[in-house]
Amino acid sequence: MSLIVQKFGGTSVGSVERIKHVANLLKETVENGNQVVVVVSAMGKTTNQLVSLANEICEEPQKRDLDMLVTTGEQVTISLLSIALANIGVEAVSLTGWQAGIKAEEQFGNARITSIDTKRITENLEKGKIVIVAGFQGVTVNDEIVTLGRGGSDTSAVALAAALKAEKCDIFTDVTGVFTTDPRIVGGARKLPAISYDEMLELANLGAGVLHPRAVEFAKNYNITLEVRSSFKSEAGTIVMEGVEMERNLIVRGIAFEEEVSKITIHQLPNEKNALGNVFTVLANNGINVDIIIQNVNDQDTTNLSFSTHANEVNHAINILKQYQEELGFTTITSETDLAKVSIVGSGMISNHGVAAQMFRELASEGIFVKMVTTSEIKVSTVIDREDMEKAVHKLHDVFQLAEVVKTES
Amino acid sequence: MSLIVQKFGGTSVGSVERIKHVANLLKETVENGNQVVVVVSAMGKTTNQLVSLANEICEEPQKRDLDMLVTTGEQVTISLLSIALANIGVEAVSLTGWQAGIKAEEQFGNARITSIDTKRITENLEKGKIVIVAGFQGVTVNDEIVTLGRGGSDTSAVALAAALKAEKCDIFTDVTGVFTTDPRIVGGARKLPAISYDEMLELANLGAGVLHPRAVEFAKNYNITLEVRSSFKSEAGTIVMEGVEMERNLIVRGIAFEEEVSKITIHQLPNEKNALGNVFTVLANNGINVDIIIQNVNDQDTTNLSFSTHANEVNHAINILKQYQEELGFTTITSETDLAKVSIVGSGMISNHGVAAQMFRELASEGIFVKMVTTSEIKVSTVIDREDMEKAVHKLHDVFQLAEVVKTES
Repeated sequence: MSLIVQKFGGTSVGSVERIKHVANLLKETVENGNQVVVVVSAMGKTTNQLVSLANEICEEPQKRDLDMLVTTGEQVTISLLSIALANIGVEAVSLTGWQAGIKAEEQFGNARITSIDTKRITENLEKGKIVIVAGFQGVTVNDEIVTLGRGGSDTSAVALAAALKAEKCDIFTDVTGVFTTDPRIVGGARKLPAISYDEMLELANLGAGVLHPRAVEFAKNYNITLEVRSSFKSEAGTIVMEGVEMERNLIVRGIAFEEEVSKITIHQLPNEKNALGNVFTVLANNGINVDIIIQNVNDQDTTNLSFSTHANEVNHAINILKQYQEELGFTTITSETDLAKVSIVGSGMISNHGVAAQMFRELASEGIFVKMVTTSEIKVSTVIDREDMEKAVHKLHDVFQLAEVVKTES
Repeated sequence: MSLIVQKFGGTSVGSVERIKHVANLLKETVENGNQVVVVVSAMGKTTNQLVSLANEICEEPQKRDLDMLVTTGEQVTISLLSIALANIGVEAVSLTGWQAGIKAEEQFGNARITSIDTKRITENLEKGKIVIVAGFQGVTVNDEIVTLGRGGSDTSAVALAAALKAEKCDIFTDVTGVFTTDPRIVGGARKLPAISYDEMLELANLGAGVLHPRAVEFAKNYNITLEVRSSFKSEAGTIVMEGVEMERNLIVRGIAFEEEVSKITIHQLPNEKNALGNVFTVLANNGINVDIIIQNVNDQDTTNLSFSTHANEVNHAINILKQYQEELGFTTITSETDLAKVSIVGSGMISNHGVAAQMFRELASEGIFVKMVTTSEIKVSTVIDREDMEKAVHKLHDVFQLAEVVKTES
């Protein structure tokens, strides 16, 4: 008998009907001889609705209050799923985060799991019950309820799989797996049978949105095999694991992209060793997320510094920087909006030089101007005009032959 | 500085606007130099909505699942109230039942509080914070979440007042106090300035619906002074306490009534010593609540047994009894519906004989036929036709002079 952790996201439990369907899926898994721990998110848009309710009172509620509020969402789901399972004759027990022994640091709104006391879960599994755990939540040493930040239910599931030494962790969602790129943009996008943690991590960070990066990182560290699959369609998903075999010719595994990118340039920043640190400290202290950073030295004394950020943070970032203009010593700030980021990801790049060059050539051949570049061992990201994004994604998907079904997969 | 426990029911916290209003009331109480523990119910009809959601899956969900589900209602309220208080600059901390140390027995759906570990509440009060506690819920020794049954938030409040040795416990609701009878039926109904625990208990049991009987019992046992008052209007409510001074001439303190009463009669039950016990054991085991019981001996061998029950339990009760007909040994069952119960309540009855007789005379003078009677030291209840109910209440309210303002009150 093997132990499987299964996670169902908000869309998968978005209605009473969907919850009943999930109960049937779980019944099958149990009847196939498995022990199951199931982690669920809040139903559909519940979390957003609860936050809106809070915002009717106050624009920026305290994070402790928000955590207390939104964790009710998952508690509703675990109750209903337990009712649905009992209704089809499957024994189950629902547990909130604190009941499931999920301990986390006292960082409201964005806590990390510190440990899991699996005693109560294990006892219930041994009694032959499905254990239903509220995702996204944990409890601190001071008995405070905290949430695990965005995508937190993925993290709950993977952490439970690690703590329970589960055979695998299924992430059920509203797509059938991880694709070479977004099928809504590129018709020929193909579902990947398998992908490595690092590749998934780059895709997740780049906005593929299927799996939360923190969860992937956790899975990698504890070597948990993940399967991203659909709760709507019964078909094999995408396996995420270490050492995924290289598919023939597949240097690039996927194309990720992100809209709503903006670029800010700080002109004539003094060329001093603390300058960069000072700028990004100011931004970080004010909660502004910076993505790509580029620095051009103008002359011996000054430098131009550009960075990309999410479009909705541009005004805030500029205001903050202007407040510190005297201290930082730059002359002007300019910004560029309506940009997008397009990235190619694949472990194949490590041993295949010239992939970045090929990417730039292809974009140029389409008349697309690259405004910023950043690279890692398995990724090349470019910032281009938003209006060129879809053209770029199509071109790169073609050029790197991602639509082709490769024989070694079958 | 005195410590006050204040409880706000579902209507009082029924919307974001109402919650903001409650926050303002609490701010005033604190500014008047009090320490405050506030107990809240779920917003408006939240509990019923959650139960409906469960019923979409299954007609009779397991009680553990229901408790897990509905306790989210109060958790939402404590979060929003905490946000509302922070928003007007009042420091507060919200606590779920388990965080507040409210221990209860493991009886899902209807647990009794066994003890309260007040450490966390006291620590927060000492820091100058308002402590907001989720009503209606507790935690068992096995870390199970349980609810305290109907009216449970009243009980939470009174139990906290007892455990914290609070000076008083205010029960905020949508009426301004306890009335001599329902003002919607009798225009001249008058708000009572004060009432004893026993009187309140009889009124509560008889359906006045303002305060839950269990909470009144708790208050009586621990000698907690209650005040029933409105969260909508700023005026003195009704004080519930021991040894309320008798108002001049006021033998009867209030008139309670209840619609939806039915009467079931079991004919020719064997006249054996176990017969009564057997009938009511069968009914109790099947969850049927019985109110008034009357037994008439027919002859040496058989007896007719009548009892009243809520209208919606009649069919269930008859079916159950018929299942056991052979064992119980009766011949037939008949039932009568469209009845009502009208009761007079007042400690004055103890030292004033003939009150019951006067009640029957007055009802008879109105042509009202009394079908069942039951009495206690401070109460006389009658079952009459539903269509006579309002006439009876008006008549009794007049006859016992309940509308008159009595001088000793001022």
